[in-house]
Amino acid sequence: MADLAPVLSHLDSDADQAVERLFELLRCQSISTDPAYDAECQKAAEWLATDLNGIGFEARVAETPGQPIVVAHDLTADGPHLMFYGHYDVQPVDPLNLWDSEPFDPAVRTRDDGSRYISGRGSSDDKGQLMTFVEACRAHKAVHGALPCKVTILLEGEEESGGASLPPFLDANRDELTADIALICDTGMWDARTPAITTMLRGNFAEEVTVKAASRDLHSGMYGSAAANPIHILTRILAEIHDGRGKVTIPGFYDGIEPLPNALKEQWEALGFDHTEFLGDVGLSEPAGETAYTALEQIWSRPTAEVNGIWGGYTGAGFKTVIPAEASAKISFRLVGKQDPETIRAAFREFVTERLPADCKAEFVGRPGGVASVMPVEDPAFEKARGALSDEWETEAAFIGEGGSIPVVGLFKEILDMDSLLIGFGLKDDCIHSPNEKYELRSFTKGARSWARVLAALGA
Amino acid sequence: MADLAPVLSHLDSDADQAVERLFELLRCQSISTDPAYDAECQKAAEWLATDLNGIGFEARVAETPGQPIVVAHDLTADGPHLMFYGHYDVQPVDPLNLWDSEPFDPAVRTRDDGSRYISGRGSSDDKGQLMTFVEACRAHKAVHGALPCKVTILLEGEEESGGASLPPFLDANRDELTADIALICDTGMWDARTPAITTMLRGNFAEEVTVKAASRDLHSGMYGSAAANPIHILTRILAEIHDGRGKVTIPGFYDGIEPLPNALKEQWEALGFDHTEFLGDVGLSEPAGETAYTALEQIWSRPTAEVNGIWGGYTGAGFKTVIPAEASAKISFRLVGKQDPETIRAAFREFVTERLPADCKAEFVGRPGGVASVMPVEDPAFEKARGALSDEWETEAAFIGEGGSIPVVGLFKEILDMDSLLIGFGLKDDCIHSPNEKYELRSFTKGARSWARVLAALGA
Repeated sequence: MADLAPVLSHLDSDADQAVERLFELLRCQSISTDPAYDAECQKAAEWLATDLNGIGFEARVAETPGQPIVVAHDLTADGPHLMFYGHYDVQPVDPLNLWDSEPFDPAVRTRDDGSRYISGRGSSDDKGQLMTFVEACRAHKAVHGALPCKVTILLEGEEESGGASLPPFLDANRDELTADIALICDTGMWDARTPAITTMLRGNFAEEVTVKAASRDLHSGMYGSAAANPIHILTRILAEIHDGRGKVTIPGFYDGIEPLPNALKEQWEALGFDHTEFLGDVGLSEPAGETAYTALEQIWSRPTAEVNGIWGGYTGAGFKTVIPAEASAKISFRLVGKQDPETIRAAFREFVTERLPADCKAEFVGRPGGVASVMPVEDPAFEKARGALSDEWETEAAFIGEGGSIPVVGLFKEILDMDSLLIGFGLKDDCIHSPNEKYELRSFTKGARSWARVLAALGA
Repeated sequence: MADLAPVLSHLDSDADQAVERLFELLRCQSISTDPAYDAECQKAAEWLATDLNGIGFEARVAETPGQPIVVAHDLTADGPHLMFYGHYDVQPVDPLNLWDSEPFDPAVRTRDDGSRYISGRGSSDDKGQLMTFVEACRAHKAVHGALPCKVTILLEGEEESGGASLPPFLDANRDELTADIALICDTGMWDARTPAITTMLRGNFAEEVTVKAASRDLHSGMYGSAAANPIHILTRILAEIHDGRGKVTIPGFYDGIEPLPNALKEQWEALGFDHTEFLGDVGLSEPAGETAYTALEQIWSRPTAEVNGIWGGYTGAGFKTVIPAEASAKISFRLVGKQDPETIRAAFREFVTERLPADCKAEFVGRPGGVASVMPVEDPAFEKARGALSDEWETEAAFIGEGGSIPVVGLFKEILDMDSLLIGFGLKDDCIHSPNEKYELRSFTKGARSWARVLAALGA
């Protein structure tokens, strides 16, 4: 094993410069879902390729029908071939008025207790996280002139917007991208002290539905009660998606879900998850999902249907007595086990369509989905990585589940036949996808040190 | 009775100039609900006062805590004292992309069949209508130098936004504004051939409700199913407002409603209302309200609860997997009989509040309401006016109901103890409150002639 101590020392002495580099990336307004920000996505991709070339990778920006993909290689080492994945795109920043600072003007801020964090959209999801790996590589190269393993880096720009370009790209570049295992830095720690490897991930897909009734907006006095109101119809259908016990009522929704293995259930119980604290942090107190499951089970092992957005009629200041011609909602589904996105998508559309009264129709726009993933923890790489993380954090690392979706894990398995080692340093209060997103400075610096250790451990 | 023929001739020869005057008023962007347009409301009020002074009225623009009110008098005649009411404010124009022309750039357009109409926001509701009365007064003054009756004109600017300033204004100017009867031009004809006097009006009031759950927007993967989703809660509560037969389920909602008198029911049936045509014009076919009532009864004699707007979460392009912190809706209620707005408002708020799950709260913003009105058709003025209308249109005028709310009718009764004679020339396809609002040129010219006749008949 290459000598690790000087690599860690180098990371420590270079930490301020590493933060400055991250800031350059965070200033790119790479909101992939909105075409208005395409040039900013391109800028982020080019910045990353330039930085990786500077370290000694052979990096390129590959164009796609959507946002570009950055691919970089350093295959000079003798060790196993690792393929690191991250994404440089970010979520929209609205509602902007709830941010305490400009989302694309990052800064290091210090709390009263002396702890420090990096503020800004993408600081945690996922630019800060992906740069922990890049910094680890930079340090190994700076100290030893080489990496402990062969490393390929793949950084995409559509993780937050459906990721349509990635599957054909993986398919077209199968030989170049297939490695022994994938490393992904887009998940969280168990808590601020306990590092974690995520071994279960929910899948997801999304639908936008628009219910249409009259051919134009109507005066609610002249037509009110005689004319179908699409807001009434949409709200009634959305309300029927869940029963009184939190179960989703779409026929066949739960097909392909096995009960949680007892061993895993016990391990999770041992984590001492406190839903009062988890929900209390965001002003809530009671789990709102299926009453038959604990909050942790709801999040890690149970599927969901969530309305993420709804709009229709007059939403400006004051009042307008209108019956609108249409009303819309965006709905996302989280999947577990062997739930199939396309089967459930079809069932959802039928669920909506068969509930439409006379004179109404529904139109759908779908976002591609990904199945859920369960990792092979028996692979020795998992224990090696767990040891490296435990050493860095001086706390036994945990195998955990994750409610969020990382569709790329399923794609790597399906297209490249490659398992994924999911290690990340995000915390639950990072406000990802929300105003005031942040990343602990400690996550960033110890994250880079963690990856330096994992690279060394996997290369040994 | 003053000689009517030269007055009607004068209206005919002055018709083009009358349209030009209306255009000047229509170009004022007097959207009263949005404070951004306050100056435009002021402009409209001043234009009207200037015009009325030019005719020979003594007119002034009275400031209020909201939009100004125009008051004008010509009390030189011997006849009865009439008080004419109209409103110069208009509805918002969104969605702007559905307009075929600029909403505030009016024009006379000609159809293939040669019929002509005036396009623009406010052309029908209510600037075009109120100017029919002003033009009738102008013609009487031009021909005879005097009006057949004492006339007071009251033009307000908050009819589309709650009308909060009018009640205290009426109260403070009771002596000045009280007349023998009010004339209101803000209603429609029965059909394009048949003039009408509206003798029943629904009342209304509105509520905006915001359901709040978590203290911030949440990632739907990290929190999905465990955290309360305010869109789910709001849609479920809204869906429960109506039962499967179109009835409103808010306790006490129907208190104070008497069955429709048989005589009136028979008169309405005789009108030959065809819901297929009424709904067909806007792309619908089946009445959506209470199944126990005909479509005409639903519109004229039954109360409603309509959601006019809903919003929450991410509504931009693409998708965002967020559980929002809050979701909102605007709801308006149409009232009949003796339904009391404030009693029902309280019942609605309780209906929502008692359905909130743990961790959620609701906040309400109310818009003042008005009760329903039923006119005293036995007053001789009603038959005089009916005769005048029948003469002008060469068709027997009808006594009809109206689904829309004109709260001022209730205020005139309550504060000034004055009944209202509701005569208007709008048509069902005028698209009021919608894109492409228009007013038939025939409504405008024959409307002015109608008022000239009504003034003469009431002065006789």
